[in-house]
Amino acid sequence: MKSSELIELLKEKILIFDGAMGTMLFKNGLSPGSCPELLNIEFPNAVENVHRLYINAGAEVIETNTFGANRIKLSAFGIADKVKELNYRAVEIARKAAGTKVLVAGSIGPTGKLIFPLGDLSFDEAYAAFKEQAGYLLEAGADLIIIETMSDLQEMRAALLAVKEFGDIPVICQMTYEKNGRTITGSDPETAARVLSAMGATVVGLNCSLGPEEAIEIIKKMARAGGVYLSAQPNAGLPDTKGGVESYAVTPEYMAKYAREMVRLGVSVVGGCCGTTPEHIKAISEAVSDLRPPLRFPDRRCFLACRTRTLYIEGRGPTPFVGERINPTARKKLAESIKNGDFGPVIKEAEEQVRAGASILDVNVGVPGIDEASAMAKAVESIQRTVDVPLSIDSSNPEAIEAGLKYFCGRAIINSVDGSKDKLEKILPLARRYGAALIGLTLDESGIPESAEKRLKVAQKIVEYAEKYGIDRNFIFIDCLCLAAGVHQNQAIETLKAISLIKKELGVKTVLGISNISHGLPFRKTLNAAFLSMAIKEGLDLPIIDPLSPEVIGALRASDLLTDRDERGEYYVFSGRVEKTSEKTL
Amino acid sequence: MKSSELIELLKEKILIFDGAMGTMLFKNGLSPGSCPELLNIEFPNAVENVHRLYINAGAEVIETNTFGANRIKLSAFGIADKVKELNYRAVEIARKAAGTKVLVAGSIGPTGKLIFPLGDLSFDEAYAAFKEQAGYLLEAGADLIIIETMSDLQEMRAALLAVKEFGDIPVICQMTYEKNGRTITGSDPETAARVLSAMGATVVGLNCSLGPEEAIEIIKKMARAGGVYLSAQPNAGLPDTKGGVESYAVTPEYMAKYAREMVRLGVSVVGGCCGTTPEHIKAISEAVSDLRPPLRFPDRRCFLACRTRTLYIEGRGPTPFVGERINPTARKKLAESIKNGDFGPVIKEAEEQVRAGASILDVNVGVPGIDEASAMAKAVESIQRTVDVPLSIDSSNPEAIEAGLKYFCGRAIINSVDGSKDKLEKILPLARRYGAALIGLTLDESGIPESAEKRLKVAQKIVEYAEKYGIDRNFIFIDCLCLAAGVHQNQAIETLKAISLIKKELGVKTVLGISNISHGLPFRKTLNAAFLSMAIKEGLDLPIIDPLSPEVIGALRASDLLTDRDERGEYYVFSGRVEKTSEKTL
Ligand SMILES: [Zn+2]
Ligand SMILES: [Zn+2]
Ligand SMILES: [Zn+2]
Repeated sequence: MKSSELIELLKEKILIFDGAMGTMLFKNGLSPGSCPELLNIEFPNAVENVHRLYINAGAEVIETNTFGANRIKLSAFGIADKVKELNYRAVEIARKAAGTKVLVAGSIGPTGKLIFPLGDLSFDEAYAAFKEQAGYLLEAGADLIIIETMSDLQEMRAALLAVKEFGDIPVICQMTYEKNGRTITGSDPETAARVLSAMGATVVGLNCSLGPEEAIEIIKKMARAGGVYLSAQPNAGLPDTKGGVESYAVTPEYMAKYAREMVRLGVSVVGGCCGTTPEHIKAISEAVSDLRPPLRFPDRRCFLACRTRTLYIEGRGPTPFVGERINPTARKKLAESIKNGDFGPVIKEAEEQVRAGASILDVNVGVPGIDEASAMAKAVESIQRTVDVPLSIDSSNPEAIEAGLKYFCGRAIINSVDGSKDKLEKILPLARRYGAALIGLTLDESGIPESAEKRLKVAQKIVEYAEKYGIDRNFIFIDCLCLAAGVHQNQAIETLKAISLIKKELGVKTVLGISNISHGLPFRKTLNAAFLSMAIKEGLDLPIIDPLSPEVIGALRASDLLTDRDERGEYYVFSGRVEKTSEKTL
Repeated sequence: MKSSELIELLKEKILIFDGAMGTMLFKNGLSPGSCPELLNIEFPNAVENVHRLYINAGAEVIETNTFGANRIKLSAFGIADKVKELNYRAVEIARKAAGTKVLVAGSIGPTGKLIFPLGDLSFDEAYAAFKEQAGYLLEAGADLIIIETMSDLQEMRAALLAVKEFGDIPVICQMTYEKNGRTITGSDPETAARVLSAMGATVVGLNCSLGPEEAIEIIKKMARAGGVYLSAQPNAGLPDTKGGVESYAVTPEYMAKYAREMVRLGVSVVGGCCGTTPEHIKAISEAVSDLRPPLRFPDRRCFLACRTRTLYIEGRGPTPFVGERINPTARKKLAESIKNGDFGPVIKEAEEQVRAGASILDVNVGVPGIDEASAMAKAVESIQRTVDVPLSIDSSNPEAIEAGLKYFCGRAIINSVDGSKDKLEKILPLARRYGAALIGLTLDESGIPESAEKRLKVAQKIVEYAEKYGIDRNFIFIDCLCLAAGVHQNQAIETLKAISLIKKELGVKTVLGISNISHGLPFRKTLNAAFLSMAIKEGLDLPIIDPLSPEVIGALRASDLLTDRDERGEYYVFSGRVEKTSEKTL
């Protein structure tokens, strides 16, 4: 099955998943603490029987009994050598029960360990384990993959990247949320849905942990992500442990009522997790049978994300900005420490810039003579441990860009691609794979065009190329390039002109590094501030600036107020940076 | 004769004036130190004979023997009671000699005293004396008036205003220049020509003091003023006083050669002053007889002027700006001192703002309960004594505006008129009479329109009204009005939009008081700087700012650099104000 076939199906109907496998196996005598996947070998009929009960109850997709069948989880039971067998058998059992009318979803659950820096499992190890399991599930004939009960977005990213290695497979990505509306590791439903959707998840959703009533609140937040199809497989209420035995209080009728509400909120895939039984699935299936599948209108809002937050960049509200300071160019000390593997100064720059209001941090570790990809990986991990903002992965080295994209938990932006074919063909697949946004410089093999019109031409080429790679133009930030005003004096106006022209003609976003305007001139901050004010007026979406310059931050806050992007003047009035400027100069 | 008839004549031909009257009378025995005008009564034939000699030599205009026949000059000879008789007789004698083919120009020379503050003659006394003399000359039948040998632009202004009282009289205004290329009181030929032309002089030029060779250099500078017709009546070389007798070394042939060169440079009226004789005029007349009259293409460059300088405001080069600080609104101390007639604080503000780079000073003395016209007169005189920059005469009181315009030696700008009929009809005649530029506010009887488009409508009304009064739209500065961003937050953008819209649609200049944008908000200078940067980018021609704010001056210099108006970056780099900003903030 292809991802697009699942989407076609979801346009036609609400898809009914099965309920809990574990709940049913424990009911049938599986002892708590044992490994449920071993039954695939030791008692396949029990598993098959559960599948049949769900199919009879109305399930249109059944999940393989492989939730814990990854190498890392199985190691805990000392049966890491059984990964292949357990996954193969599970698919065989499910397929036997499913026949041709019911779909088999290969179930992938968490490793049980936390990924670095939250725990000590490396991203690459997790990725390898998921890739191994997904490979077996697909080889054995699973129709689609469901990655579920993930409480860490980073682990989900590793699993999703692993599954996507096998081509255009339909993938359902279900996170599990706490009562506070976030995953244990802090991600909110909107952010998880957006990040996973950008990375190619066919359906995003939630399962387990919460009952249907609490799930509703999560679904409302997930639905804000727009566009992507949603799934929900809550528990049958919250677990109630009386006398050491888990029980769930929610009746089939209650769950069915909420299932209708979920569909109304945009959910296309419904099922159940812990505590749900064939009776629940039957009730759900009957309850939604007369409902039409929800329409999911595409939502092209531009965003970046970090683990805990989505940052929309849509030209309304105070202008977000990229902090430029993590860059060793012309900064000897910083370069030296990066070279020596000391990321303390990088962390300090990250902290200070975020404290000064930076919404995004540019990360450039391009010190000559180092292993840039490894330095980028360390920088991204160090920064993520300290602050939580989206990153701009800044390098001319594709390996370094890939390292940054891989280890960053969220949606980063690539800085940068340009109009040269070589660059486009190297970088665009990375943007696609990691679901990253993209900065496109208006230069190509023949250099930087002098006129705004010619820069538009280069931007157009970048956009067309990117769209061929499936990257929406709304996620492309064109950098019209700021040349040093001391040398190219007529170019500042051309850059400003290019900003409004390119926005208008191509409907893309614009980004601009401001500081270069004053390269080689005195009183740099005065010039930077004036240029920034003009660029904001011209419609610049994302300035790259030095957040530690009060003049520049002051100019940005003032410009937002003047362009009516700071509705109550709160950013202007309450920005600590502006206050600092003012103290110095009033 | 009407002014337009003289212009029609100058389109057809080069006009030949006569040569020296005094030189000829002294040759014929008039004793040095006596009053030449007395001959009009005592020896009219001698005067008539000189006229006839010049007419026979080819003069097409002869000047009445009334150069010193104003009340103030005649007082020195104790014959102030003979003003009427001397002027009447002179016109009668000239007319008799001229017949109908030759024109009679009523000659008006200086009072011999310097006007306040350079001397103690009041502007109003000088004006009265000139008005008296001009009245007699015109009543007696002079075809046109020539005001000549003026070494002080302010005295020339008084005389020209006096003559223009009699209607659309052709007036030739000739200043006399020193070898350094300026009048004794410091005016340069371009400035004098521009100021007098704006006030309604039909022809501007030079006479006396210099020989033809030196006159050429003055003419080149005068010619830069463009548009207006030019006259030149130099001496026959520089005076050479051997044994107490003045003599002039230049031969008729030499003068004739230079006369051709003058015409080539744009002179339409040629003649001679001290030392020139009928032989010189004959030679000149013959020398230019085959030349076509110079074409004087209109020159609509926008300018303001003070006594010693013309300030062009044409959107190229560093943006000029108006210093806003001479304004008692919300400044109790300044208000108090103006009320008490103490202009010391006003002078101090003037000095500081000019030192900080102000190209123009706004002068507002609107303290409630005072005689504002008299205070304006004193303020303008005090400021002119201290600094020499064009002034913006800022009042809602037409009498105060007139006082400012009258006593200011140069071309001021009126701040302001608006779109209300009452205001337009009161202020436009003043702009016309004093040759002032005009600030037009985009508001009318119904207040300030919210949209840029509606502001354009008001601006259009102002421009159309002004053009009916003969005021060129290129001398109109539209103020799109800056409202406090804290209260009217969406209006900053509308104001900026109005600037580019109104410039594009109406071809006028734009002016804008920047400081009001931050009214009621903290960190005012930060906001002012950002707004100024945007406004300069939008094409604002003339900001009104506080020159003592380094942030704002820094933003202006930076914006000029960024909009390519500071070709070598010199204003940016060498502006002391920017340095100050930078010291405080780097
Ligand atoms: Zn569960
Ligand atoms: Zn489950
Ligand atoms: Zn003379």
